[in-house]
Amino acid sequence: MTSPEYSHHFSLNNLPYGVASSPVHPQQCATRLHNTVIFLGALQKSGFFNGVSSLPNNIFAEHTLNAFAALPNSIHAAVRTHLQSALQPGVESLPANSTADITAVTMHLPVSIGGFTDFSCSLNHVQNAGRAILNDPSPPPGFFHFPIGYGGRASTVAVSGTPIIRPNGHFYDRTSPTPKTVIYGPSRALDYEMELGAVIGRPLEREKCVKAKDAEEHIFGFVILNDWSARDIQGLEMIPLGPLNGKAFGSTISPWIVTIDALSPFKAPGPEPRVTLPDHLQEERDFNYDINMSVELLHPSNETKKDEIHASTIATSLAKDLFWSHRQMAAHLASSGCDLRTGDLLGTGTVSGPVDGSFGCLLESTKGGKETVKLVDGSERVYLRDGDVVRMSAVVGAEGSGVGFGECVGEVLPARVY
Amino acid sequence: MTSPEYSHHFSLNNLPYGVASSPVHPQQCATRLHNTVIFLGALQKSGFFNGVSSLPNNIFAEHTLNAFAALPNSIHAAVRTHLQSALQPGVESLPANSTADITAVTMHLPVSIGGFTDFSCSLNHVQNAGRAILNDPSPPPGFFHFPIGYGGRASTVAVSGTPIIRPNGHFYDRTSPTPKTVIYGPSRALDYEMELGAVIGRPLEREKCVKAKDAEEHIFGFVILNDWSARDIQGLEMIPLGPLNGKAFGSTISPWIVTIDALSPFKAPGPEPRVTLPDHLQEERDFNYDINMSVELLHPSNETKKDEIHASTIATSLAKDLFWSHRQMAAHLASSGCDLRTGDLLGTGTVSGPVDGSFGCLLESTKGGKETVKLVDGSERVYLRDGDVVRMSAVVGAEGSGVGFGECVGEVLPARVY
Repeated sequence: MTSPEYSHHFSLNNLPYGVASSPVHPQQCATRLHNTVIFLGALQKSGFFNGVSSLPNNIFAEHTLNAFAALPNSIHAAVRTHLQSALQPGVESLPANSTADITAVTMHLPVSIGGFTDFSCSLNHVQNAGRAILNDPSPPPGFFHFPIGYGGRASTVAVSGTPIIRPNGHFYDRTSPTPKTVIYGPSRALDYEMELGAVIGRPLEREKCVKAKDAEEHIFGFVILNDWSARDIQGLEMIPLGPLNGKAFGSTISPWIVTIDALSPFKAPGPEPRVTLPDHLQEERDFNYDINMSVELLHPSNETKKDEIHASTIATSLAKDLFWSHRQMAAHLASSGCDLRTGDLLGTGTVSGPVDGSFGCLLESTKGGKETVKLVDGSERVYLRDGDVVRMSAVVGAEGSGVGFGECVGEVLPARVY
Repeated sequence: MTSPEYSHHFSLNNLPYGVASSPVHPQQCATRLHNTVIFLGALQKSGFFNGVSSLPNNIFAEHTLNAFAALPNSIHAAVRTHLQSALQPGVESLPANSTADITAVTMHLPVSIGGFTDFSCSLNHVQNAGRAILNDPSPPPGFFHFPIGYGGRASTVAVSGTPIIRPNGHFYDRTSPTPKTVIYGPSRALDYEMELGAVIGRPLEREKCVKAKDAEEHIFGFVILNDWSARDIQGLEMIPLGPLNGKAFGSTISPWIVTIDALSPFKAPGPEPRVTLPDHLQEERDFNYDINMSVELLHPSNETKKDEIHASTIATSLAKDLFWSHRQMAAHLASSGCDLRTGDLLGTGTVSGPVDGSFGCLLESTKGGKETVKLVDGSERVYLRDGDVVRMSAVVGAEGSGVGFGECVGEVLPARVY
C-alpha cells in the first residue's frame, strides 16, 4: 500500500531510504524522488556509485538497510551529495531498469530491528494522560531528569500498510456492576500513538557511552511510528512492570527513513531543561527538528452510503515541542552500559500539544474515554472501531519544504476468535 | 570461565546443548557428558548423525543453536536418543577430534536472542518484594490473572563468566537531608535476581496463538538467568513504564540449555490457580519442574587475608513453587498476537520461597535494604560490592539425579568513570 499522494514530501532535498520491490525488481534498498522509486541496488550494479569512495560493493542489493545504515555518517553524506548532483536534471538520466512509479512498488520494513525502546519525551503527553487517567497532570517522578522509557517488542514492528488485528487480553470490565471484575476478550479501548522513531545507524558497543551532543553519529534517520495501544489491557498489566501485551501485538512505521542530513536544515529550539542535567544528557539549544505531524481517521460512513470513505483529521502536533531529543534518548540508554545496535528503534512516545486538536492519541483526545471525538460524517469515536484506518503523516518545516515522511497507515481488523 | 565442579549435573540423562570453542575447535554447537565437551559440528561431519532422519547437514557447525532449536521437538528427541545410545559405553568411542575437557573449552552465548521478555511468576517474590518496598504483600492487580511481564533488553544478555560493570544512573540520594533529591552516579543498590529462562525453539508466527497445554512444542529448553538489577535506578525510572536502565545494562545466562526432554521426568505440581483462567492459560496439574536453585556469593575476605575467596550460600529456592509455568508465559505473550521467535528468552522472574534463606534476590533477603546478609567470613552485605562474584546453580530433582544446569557466574566490576 503506497500512495502517490505525498509526492511533494519527496523532493531532491529529502532522498530518504527505504526497501522496495516491484514485479521486475527484487527486494533491495531504494530512495524516492517525488513519485519515482529509485532502486539503489540496480543503480549500484550499473556503476553509478563508483565515484563514492568507501561504499562497499552491492551494499544496496541487501534486503534491509542495516549494512548501509551502519556505515559512518560521512559515507551517508557522500552518497546523498552524489545522488543530489546526479538527479538535478531529473530521474530521466538514470538507467531505465533502476526506477519505477511508486504505485507499482511494494515497500518493506526498511531495517531489521533488533531492539525497540519506546520513550516518553512529550511533557504535554504525560500531563494530558495524567489528567485523563488520574486527574493529576504531574509528570512521572523521573520525567525531568531523563527520558523515561520501556522495552517494546521489536519483532512485531511492521511497515505501513500492514493491518493491525485487534488484540485479545485481560482488562477490567467497565460494564460490570462489580468493580474490578477482570475479563478476557477483544480490547474495547484500541488506540494509536503518533510518534517519531529514531533509527540507530552506526552501532555503539556495550559499555561505550556517548554524550547526547555526540549521539547523532549513531542515528541514521527518522520514521513515523504508530505505537498501537490497547488501553484497557495496558491499564491492568502495567502495574508495576510497565506495558507488555497492551503494546506487543504490533507497531507500524512509515517505509521511508528521512535522514539526519535531510533534517539538519530544520533544527528548532526545544523546551528548556527544568533541572541541571548530567554531562551526557546536556543538549545544545536547537535540539529538536521542526516536524509537523498529523493523524487522520479514514472511516467508512456509518450512514446509508457504507462504501464511502471519509477522512477526519483528529490532531496535528509539533515534534519541536518534545522535551527530550533523539540524541538524549540514545545517550540515556547507552549510559547504563547498554549497547546500541544498527536498526534499533527509539520511539519518542506520543507527540502531543497542550490543547484540543493537538493530542497524539485517543486517550488524550477523549479525556480518558470520557468524551468523544467528532468525525466529519457526524459519527463519533471513543476508541478505534474495526475497519477504521489510521493515517499519520509528517512534513518537515513548512508544507512546501519538499521534505516529509509520507504516510504511516494501518487498518484495524476484528479480533481473532479462538 | 567453565568449571569442572558440576560434572555430576551432566550425566547421560542430561545432554544439554551449548555453543563452544577450543584452541583446535572453531565455535560450534556442543553437548556435555560429565566433564567432556562433545563438539557436535565435528561429530556431524564424521557422519555420526547420518542415521537421524530430517537433521539438516552441518546444522551443528553453526555459531548458534538457533537453526537446530527451530526444528520440531521430534528431531530434538531423535538426536537425543541417538546420542544416548552411542554414548552408553562412554565418550571413548567418539572420534578423538570431537571431544575436549571442559577446562580447555570456551563457552559462548548458546542462541542469538531476538527478544527477551521477563515475567514475574513467583507469588512469594512479589509478596516478599511488596512487603520490603511498600510494607504491603499484596500482589499486583493482574498477578492471579496472567503472568505479568516486561520487555527486557536482548542485546545485553551474555553468557556465564562475562563480568558485569556496575551501571551509572539516576536515583534518589538516600543520604541527602532533602527527600527525593535525584542524583546521577554509580548504582548503590546493585542486586541479582535468580531466575530460570525458557528458550523458544520452534517459532510461532504472529497472530497464531497457542494454548499453554500445547506451548511446549515451542520451547527448546531452560537456562539459569541472572537478571542483574540496580534497585535504586529501577525504583525511580519504573513509574509508570516499568524498568529500563535499571536492568538493560546486562543479564547473564548459563551456557548449557537443558532440554525439555531431559526435564520431563521431573514434572511437579504447581500452585492451584486462584481464579478461573481463560482457555489458553489453563494448565495440567504437574505444570512445573522440580528444579532446585541456589545462589552463592564468592567474595574476597575483608579481613587480613585479602586473597582468600569465601563462598557464602545466600539462598536456595524451588522452581516448582512458581505460580505460572513457562508454557503459560509463552501462551500469554502469544495471546496478544505477538509472535515467538527462535532464541527468544522468557524469564520466570525471581524464584523465591516464603522464608529467610529462600529469597532469590538481595532486595528480599535484606528486606529492602533494611537488614544485612551475613557472609561466612563474618562480613555483611546489603547490596553487591565491586569484586563480588555471584554464582547461581540449579539441579533437577535430587542432587544425584544426574541432571543439572551447572553454574551461572558473573563478577561485579567497578562503574565506569566518564
